[in-house]
Amino acid sequence: MNTSLIRTLLGYLLMIAATVALFFAVRGYGEGLAAPEAATVAAGASRPPAASHPLLHLLLALAAVILLGRLLGRLFAMFRQPPVIGEVLAGICLGPSLLGRLAPDVAHFVLPDSVAPSLSIVAQLGVILYMFVVGLELNVGILHKQGHVTLAISHASIIVPFSLGALLAIWLYPLLSSGGYSFTSFALFLSVSMSITAFPVLARILTDRGLHKTDLGVMALACAAIDDVSAWCLLALVVGVAHSQVTDALWVTLLTLSYIVFMFAVVRPLVARAVPRFCPQGLTPGAMAALLVGMLLSAVATEAIGIHAIFGAFLFGAVIPHDSQIAEQMSEKLSTLVTTLLLPAFFAFTGMRTEIGLVSGTEQWLICLAIIAVATLGKFGGTLAAARLMGQGWRDAASLGVLMNTRGLMELIVLNIGLDLGIISPTLFAMMVLMALATTIATSPILHALIPSVAALPARSRGAEVARSV
Amino acid sequence: MNTSLIRTLLGYLLMIAATVALFFAVRGYGEGLAAPEAATVAAGASRPPAASHPLLHLLLALAAVILLGRLLGRLFAMFRQPPVIGEVLAGICLGPSLLGRLAPDVAHFVLPDSVAPSLSIVAQLGVILYMFVVGLELNVGILHKQGHVTLAISHASIIVPFSLGALLAIWLYPLLSSGGYSFTSFALFLSVSMSITAFPVLARILTDRGLHKTDLGVMALACAAIDDVSAWCLLALVVGVAHSQVTDALWVTLLTLSYIVFMFAVVRPLVARAVPRFCPQGLTPGAMAALLVGMLLSAVATEAIGIHAIFGAFLFGAVIPHDSQIAEQMSEKLSTLVTTLLLPAFFAFTGMRTEIGLVSGTEQWLICLAIIAVATLGKFGGTLAAARLMGQGWRDAASLGVLMNTRGLMELIVLNIGLDLGIISPTLFAMMVLMALATTIATSPILHALIPSVAALPARSRGAEVARSV
Repeated sequence: MNTSLIRTLLGYLLMIAATVALFFAVRGYGEGLAAPEAATVAAGASRPPAASHPLLHLLLALAAVILLGRLLGRLFAMFRQPPVIGEVLAGICLGPSLLGRLAPDVAHFVLPDSVAPSLSIVAQLGVILYMFVVGLELNVGILHKQGHVTLAISHASIIVPFSLGALLAIWLYPLLSSGGYSFTSFALFLSVSMSITAFPVLARILTDRGLHKTDLGVMALACAAIDDVSAWCLLALVVGVAHSQVTDALWVTLLTLSYIVFMFAVVRPLVARAVPRFCPQGLTPGAMAALLVGMLLSAVATEAIGIHAIFGAFLFGAVIPHDSQIAEQMSEKLSTLVTTLLLPAFFAFTGMRTEIGLVSGTEQWLICLAIIAVATLGKFGGTLAAARLMGQGWRDAASLGVLMNTRGLMELIVLNIGLDLGIISPTLFAMMVLMALATTIATSPILHALIPSVAALPARSRGAEVARSV
Repeated sequence: MNTSLIRTLLGYLLMIAATVALFFAVRGYGEGLAAPEAATVAAGASRPPAASHPLLHLLLALAAVILLGRLLGRLFAMFRQPPVIGEVLAGICLGPSLLGRLAPDVAHFVLPDSVAPSLSIVAQLGVILYMFVVGLELNVGILHKQGHVTLAISHASIIVPFSLGALLAIWLYPLLSSGGYSFTSFALFLSVSMSITAFPVLARILTDRGLHKTDLGVMALACAAIDDVSAWCLLALVVGVAHSQVTDALWVTLLTLSYIVFMFAVVRPLVARAVPRFCPQGLTPGAMAALLVGMLLSAVATEAIGIHAIFGAFLFGAVIPHDSQIAEQMSEKLSTLVTTLLLPAFFAFTGMRTEIGLVSGTEQWLICLAIIAVATLGKFGGTLAAARLMGQGWRDAASLGVLMNTRGLMELIVLNIGLDLGIISPTLFAMMVLMALATTIATSPILHALIPSVAALPARSRGAEVARSV
C-alpha cells in the first residue's frame, strides 16, 4: 500500500511537471502570435439602456426563465436530459441568440441590459446557496477513504484537458482572443475552462439517476469536488496573471490550501462536536441562522482570498456532517427555493450574455466543433486513462470519464468571469457555452448506455451508503 | 342586518367625505407655507464610494446583520419583543447611527455605500417572498365572513391617523420637508405614513404569541391586510401627486381595485379547482415552479400598475387556499430561508439609510415625540373607537388598536420610498423610523397586559381554526 502510494505520488509529480513543461513550451511559441485586429465589442454594449424599472424586469425575467426552463426541461427529459439543460437552454433562448433575433422588442422588454446587475446579484446568491447545499450533501467520509485514488484521477482529469487547451490556444489566439491580453493569459484561461467539471450539475445528474450514493457516484462527486477546488485555484492564477501579478496568484493558491486545511482540520471537528450539543433536536431557527452566518463568512473568506465566494460556501457545507439531522433539514429547507427561484436567475444572466449568432461561417463552426472535441478528448480521455491506471474496471472508468466531462453550471461561471475580464471574446464565449451544453447533454445518454439502471449495479456499489462516516 | 349594513355604509361614506374635506382645508392653509431653506443632503451622499467588491460586501453585510439581529433579538425577547425588533435595531446599529459614529472605518467596510444597490435587490426579493408567505397563510374565509366589520374598522384606522398626519404636516413642512415638493405631496406622504400597519410584523407578533388563528388575530390580520391595500393605493396617489399626475393616481387606484376583484373573482376559483386536480399528493417541483411563476407575474402586474410588487405577491398568496397541502408546504419551504437570509437584507438596507444622529436638539426630539404621539393617537384611538362602534368589547377593541399601531416593516418600506422620492428629509426619515420602532416595541407588552396568554382566551376565540373555509 505504501509503495503504491509512493508510486502514485511520483507519477503524480511527474504528470504535473510534464504539464508545466508543456505549458511553458506552448507559451514560448504562442507569445509570438498576434491577437486579431478588430476585437469584437462585448455583446449588447451597443444596445441602448432600457427604461428604468429594474425590479419589474427582474421579476419578469425570473418568471420567464423559470417557466420556459420547466417546459424545455420536460421536453428534454424525454431524451434522458437533466433539468439543468432545459434551464440553460431557456436562458439562451430568452437572450440575444433566439428571442433577441426573432423579436428584439420583446427580448429587450423581458431582459433589458439594465436588468443585468440585479440579475447578477440574485444569480450569485443562488449559486452560492446551491453550492452550500451541494457541500452539505457531500459525503466527505468516502472521499477521505478513497483519498489518493480520487486525487490522482481528479488531477489527471485536469491535466490532460489543461494541456490540450494550451495547445488549442496556439490556434485560437490569433483568431478569437479579444485583444488587450497576452497569449499567456489567453492560453491559461482556455486551459482552465477546458478542465472544468460541473460539480453541481454532476451532482444533479447523479441524484436524478439515483447514483449519488453509490461508490461510482461518490467517487465522481469527490473527483469533481477536487477538480473544482483545483480549477478555482488555477482560475485565481489566471486572474492574477491577467493582472500581471503572478506572485499574487501564488499567494492566492497558498492561502486557498491553508484555508482548506483550516476548514477540515479545525472547523470540521468543532462543528461535529457542536452539532449534537447545541442541536440535539435538529434544526432550530438559531442553528439555521448560525449556519447561514458561517456559510456567509466562509464565502467572504474565499472571496477575500481571491477565489470565488461559492467555493467558501461549498467548503462550509462540506465540513458539516452530511448525515446529521441539521445537514439534512438545512439542505431540504434551502434546496427548493434555491433551485426553483434563485438559480434560474443565473441561467437567465448567462443566456443574456450568450450570442450564438456571433458564431458564423463554416470556419467558426469548425472551430466550435474542434473545441468540443478537444474538451471531450481531454476530460473523458484523461479521466478514463487515470481511472484504468488506478485499477478501476473499464465500465466504471468510462462512466467516470463521461461524468467528469459534464461542464454545465461551473463552466458557465468560469466563462462569465473570462468575459468579464475581457480575456475571451463574445464569439469564443458563445462557442464555449455551446461546448458546455454539448458535453453536458452527452453525459446522461452515454451514462445510461454504460449503466442501464441503478438496479443493475453490483451490490457493492449500492451498499456504499452503509460506508458513511462522520 | 341590512339596516346595519346601510348604516355602516353611510357612516363610512361620511367618514371619508369628512377626511377629504379636512385634508383640503389643511391643504388650503398649508400651501402658503415655505419649505426650509437649507435642505439636508441625502444621508451618506458625501461619503466616498467604497472599493469595488460588491459581492464580498453584500455577503459580509448579510452575515453581520443576521448575527447581530439574532443577538439583539434574544436580548429583546426578554422584554416580550418580537424578533423583528432585534433585526431592525441590528440594521440601525450597523448603519451610520451607531457603528458609523463609533467606528466609521468598520462601518464603511461592512456596509459601504456601494453595497446599497445589491442589498436593495436582495431586500426587495426578500420582502416580496415574505409577503407571498404571509398571503399563503392568510385565512381569507374569515375575512370574508367578517367582511364589512373588518372593512369599517380598517378604514377608520386609516382615516383618523391620516387626518392627524395632515394636521401635523402644517407644523412639520416648514421645518423638515426636503424642499422641491409642494405641501400637498408632503402632507399626503406624512398622512399615509401615519396610516400604515405593519402587516408582516403584526403577523409575526400574532404567530409568536399563538394568536394568529384566533378571532381577534384573524380580524387584526384582515384589518391590517385591508389597511395595506388602502395604504398602497394612497401611496400610489402620493407618488402620482408628487409627479403632478393626479389623473394617473386615480387610474392607479381604479386598476388596483380591478386587479383585486380579478384575483378573487377569477383566479381564486381557478386555483381552488386546479390544486386538487394537479397536486393531489402535495407540492411537486412543477407545482412549486408554477406557484412561483404565478407569484412573480402577479408581482409584475401590481408593479406595472404602479403600486408595489409586494402587494401582487401577497395577493397571489392570498388566493391560494390557505389550508391546502400546497399552501402549507410552500410556506414551510419558503419561510425559513426568506426570514433568516433575505429579510435581514432589508433591515440592513434600512439601517444604512437611517441616521439617528440627524435628530438633534430638544426641539427635534420633541417633534419626534410628537410624531410618535400623533401616530399612536391616530392609529390606536381610531381603531379602538371604530371597533367599539362595531360592537367589539373593550378588551378586544383595545387589543385591536394596539395591534394596528404596529408599524415595523411596512412603515420602513413606505419611508424608504419617501426618502427615494426626496419628499421627506433624512432627518424626518430618522424620526419616522424611531416612530415605527416605538409603536412596534409598544405592541407586545401592551398586548400581553391585555391578553395575558392564549390559554386565558375564551374558547370561542381559540376555536376559530374550525371556522376555516376554502
